[in-house]
Amino acid sequence: MPRDFPAPPVFADLMEAKARLAPHVHRTPVMTSRSFDAETGARVFFKCETFQRGGAFKFRGAMNAILALPEAARARGVVAYSSGNHAQGLAYAAKIAGIPATIVMPRDAPALKIAATRGYGAEVVFYDRYSESREEIGRRIAEAQDASLIPPFDHPDVIAGQGTATIELLEETGPLDALFVPLGGGGLLAGAALAAQALSPGCRVFGVEPAAGNDGQMSLAKGEIVEIPVPRSIADGAIVTAVGRHNFPVLRDAVTAIETVTDAELVAMMRFHAERMKLYVEPTGCLPGAAIRKQAASLAGKRVGAILSGGNVDLARFAELVLAAGEEAA
Amino acid sequence: MPRDFPAPPVFADLMEAKARLAPHVHRTPVMTSRSFDAETGARVFFKCETFQRGGAFKFRGAMNAILALPEAARARGVVAYSSGNHAQGLAYAAKIAGIPATIVMPRDAPALKIAATRGYGAEVVFYDRYSESREEIGRRIAEAQDASLIPPFDHPDVIAGQGTATIELLEETGPLDALFVPLGGGGLLAGAALAAQALSPGCRVFGVEPAAGNDGQMSLAKGEIVEIPVPRSIADGAIVTAVGRHNFPVLRDAVTAIETVTDAELVAMMRFHAERMKLYVEPTGCLPGAAIRKQAASLAGKRVGAILSGGNVDLARFAELVLAAGEEAA
Repeated sequence: MPRDFPAPPVFADLMEAKARLAPHVHRTPVMTSRSFDAETGARVFFKCETFQRGGAFKFRGAMNAILALPEAARARGVVAYSSGNHAQGLAYAAKIAGIPATIVMPRDAPALKIAATRGYGAEVVFYDRYSESREEIGRRIAEAQDASLIPPFDHPDVIAGQGTATIELLEETGPLDALFVPLGGGGLLAGAALAAQALSPGCRVFGVEPAAGNDGQMSLAKGEIVEIPVPRSIADGAIVTAVGRHNFPVLRDAVTAIETVTDAELVAMMRFHAERMKLYVEPTGCLPGAAIRKQAASLAGKRVGAILSGGNVDLARFAELVLAAGEEAA
Repeated sequence: MPRDFPAPPVFADLMEAKARLAPHVHRTPVMTSRSFDAETGARVFFKCETFQRGGAFKFRGAMNAILALPEAARARGVVAYSSGNHAQGLAYAAKIAGIPATIVMPRDAPALKIAATRGYGAEVVFYDRYSESREEIGRRIAEAQDASLIPPFDHPDVIAGQGTATIELLEETGPLDALFVPLGGGGLLAGAALAAQALSPGCRVFGVEPAAGNDGQMSLAKGEIVEIPVPRSIADGAIVTAVGRHNFPVLRDAVTAIETVTDAELVAMMRFHAERMKLYVEPTGCLPGAAIRKQAASLAGKRVGAILSGGNVDLARFAELVLAAGEEAA
């Protein structure tokens, strides 16, 4: 029988990650909103990874990958390329593990994310998102420093770590009918799908990506990884050019479908999270709620999970986005 | 021995309120922030009443006052005057109790609060904050409808209800060295002081009010209630002219001191709550954090509580406040 190469992670890897991460991650709260339920007709459970260490779920995968390294390799440090949250997550995890970290970040990454990454003691190296290859720069630095490259999503230990968010959610809610998860490179979604498959069989799992960059949707439709030019969307955690090689087989086998939402729909959801739920959520974290609103007709009476992936958005940027949307609406 | 008249509530009233409210209130989360602790040198526990039903602690007092009414009186409905959060809290509580509610609100109350109050099915009657007496209008309506007037803070059942937030906080944290609480009319603060006195003896209890309206501070200094003109501050939940008659004796006997903060300090704290803690907090809710920052020198190594009273601020207003502050800083 042919076997996917590289081997995708399995649920046992998630349980191992959960035990490994227990002393380090926050068990983030699960919140509900009567008004969101009234609007959609569903019963929606929001897993608030905005309150995770480093402000996003990324800390889980980064910390798990570091802890899974052999001790000698771990001591030599880690390198990552990231549009933001993985950078912070890995920098924070490296700080806790007491090892050096170098982060390759796009020059136009949010100032808050750059400052936070440096605040955790990591060295930041910049690249141009639209002309340079972050993968190549990351690999070069890792070789020069004999350090371990921890990619933001295309790594079994990263996927397993991200999956622990969904394990926690399902432990709290019990079985769900559907689960909506932001989709960038597929770390969070692959982990969520593996967790749901094991703990809530029959739960339909949806990835949600920006309409401007629906490579994940195209990849599932085609049955192979489709690469696209760097998409432009306010969901800066989801503007990748392709899902990962470790991620794709899991998505193909365990994800029901990929939904897309527009930037305007993301801003509307940001407003709802803030005004009605008192939650400060970055655009990427608004993908699930926005998709649930669009799919509400098929979710009536259902128990639905949503992963609010993070809250790392500059306040100035946040204010500009919601004010611009308010003016359009007026 | 002389006795205060009217009799202030005692801790037993809070425990009764807690039992009465148990099926109705959210047990809101207590959050911490490593960066706030690093900045202040204290260990600070934020009780997030932003996540309370209706978006603020006010639901507790309003619901307790309604549930404490004799059944016949309750059925005839309730009336309130409020600068906002009490209006929403009472309207929401009345909806749950299935009784009619009329709310007297200032014409310049935040649009979000007016809309939410109406959304709970209450009738809204407007008045001019700077020329009319809301107390008088409220009393007139209550008499005409034979309904019960539930004041926003000057009422033993309201104070007892608000105190349940601090009971929950102390149940979760254990004894604290200090507790910081927003001060408007003194409902939340009187309840907090009674709870702390009983459950964490020795805990220093601080009220925090806007520097522009320090009537509470003056009242404690003078030993009697001092009335001031309507203060102007962005902390719209704390711009009252005087603390309540039921509240004052409790504040006098159980509160350590009243601290004040400026609007600029409130905005800086709003920014911190959003960017660093991912919490959407209204200006009044930022009073405790802002005061803790100012008092940090005396709080080093201490375990400190803070009541984040609510999150009911228009998003447009929120965005304008933080953007204006950002421009000043730049």
